[in-house]
Amino acid sequence: MPKRYHIVFAHPEPRSLNGFLRDRAIAGLQEQGHVVTQSDLYATRFKATADGEDFPSRDLTDERLIYHRESGVAQAEGKQREDIATEQARLLAADAIILQFPLWWFSMPAILKGWVDRVFATGFAIGVPKDGTGQWLRYGEGLLAGRRAMLAVTTGGREAQFGARGIHGPIDDLLFPINHGILHYVGLEVVAPWVAFQSTRLTEQAADDLADDYVQRLLSIFDTPPIGYRSENGGDYDERQVLRPDIRAGTGFAAHIGQSDGN
Amino acid sequence: MPKRYHIVFAHPEPRSLNGFLRDRAIAGLQEQGHVVTQSDLYATRFKATADGEDFPSRDLTDERLIYHRESGVAQAEGKQREDIATEQARLLAADAIILQFPLWWFSMPAILKGWVDRVFATGFAIGVPKDGTGQWLRYGEGLLAGRRAMLAVTTGGREAQFGARGIHGPIDDLLFPINHGILHYVGLEVVAPWVAFQSTRLTEQAADDLADDYVQRLLSIFDTPPIGYRSENGGDYDERQVLRPDIRAGTGFAAHIGQSDGN
Repeated sequence: MPKRYHIVFAHPEPRSLNGFLRDRAIAGLQEQGHVVTQSDLYATRFKATADGEDFPSRDLTDERLIYHRESGVAQAEGKQREDIATEQARLLAADAIILQFPLWWFSMPAILKGWVDRVFATGFAIGVPKDGTGQWLRYGEGLLAGRRAMLAVTTGGREAQFGARGIHGPIDDLLFPINHGILHYVGLEVVAPWVAFQSTRLTEQAADDLADDYVQRLLSIFDTPPIGYRSENGGDYDERQVLRPDIRAGTGFAAHIGQSDGN
Repeated sequence: MPKRYHIVFAHPEPRSLNGFLRDRAIAGLQEQGHVVTQSDLYATRFKATADGEDFPSRDLTDERLIYHRESGVAQAEGKQREDIATEQARLLAADAIILQFPLWWFSMPAILKGWVDRVFATGFAIGVPKDGTGQWLRYGEGLLAGRRAMLAVTTGGREAQFGARGIHGPIDDLLFPINHGILHYVGLEVVAPWVAFQSTRLTEQAADDLADDYVQRLLSIFDTPPIGYRSENGGDYDERQVLRPDIRAGTGFAAHIGQSDGN
């Protein structure tokens, strides 16, 4: 059954390995009948900085800017800037959302972080009330629920450096603030990231194999069980959003993966 | 003895709590005779996106852009853009470097991430060879070694949510990619972050107390022992940059804090 994939692409050079992988992903998905849309943030010179200019109708002599509040006003009144509204519509139309980027300083390039800061607006991705409960739609619930999400990341570093005792720290922990704190937060079903290590030293054949692997991961995304992040309102957290004592899952990031049956 | 503090400030509104804290920090440090410089990224409309325009003398019809390589060429030839060169000079002139920002999506606002992406150039912060050893000056060594660094972060979230079993994940783990992966990476001596929770709901008195606390943390920064992150070339890591088997420190982020005596 054809699905809609949306790729958010954040690399400055289309002739890079990342550009090659992106092109192969699109072709490989389309070959199987899927629909692919794309936000090429560099090509469209996406505005990276969340600031007062995101609210052109705001009175600048007015009170101080509280960005997240102003973002909620624009969202509620249907007055988001066109670039923000366009991105939101693309996300809502997708069945799977892919963020593809080179790992810069163990996180996203600024242009992609700015995409998150601006597009994941109040009333769209954050600050969405769960009707009548006093709770929020977040961490497993939200307007984007029911869609798959995956990070597709390249890094020049070696896999061992990102292992359990590698110097950079485990890749899953480095990506937790994005996978859990952004994608799961807004209700997306996050599958394990696709990561290409030592991406600066690939032969043509290795790049080709890598692209095949990437396409396969994308094609199987709906058959891949999501990372089992707990839901905020699923019963595992107390009223302070702390894991309940009977959830015997230890501490740290890994404690937030589990079943809602007490483990 | 007077010291030089440099504050990198990333909030869009000077009349915000962050602006208030920044102003109080500057005043409090100056009162004690210290010199304070500042990079107000929003006020100066700092360019957030690392792209080909960072290299105006590059032939655009030339080969594909490899940003980190071009960054190294510009650094070696003294041709960094003025905004980048200015920031580097400020960092080199400082005894303590403070990154002050609101926590947006569990990380830095895009404008600050872009400051890192662009200013921490190849040959300045990354890709600096350790003469004659085949090793790199990084993770504890580098051109910025000998300087203190601290994150100063505000968040609307409650402290319990950022605790050992809080839903967001432990704050120290969330900030590890910055503290370890950026600040320690470039050789800075990183002290524990100063974090203000529930920053959107403060009374005037509470904001005042918070500012006093912030100033005290800044004043004592040189008497505060840095987080004991291990040095890449200090003997704890093998040639793959993986912790040696005799380092009995477990796995994950915390394993990279310790002494070079086998613990």
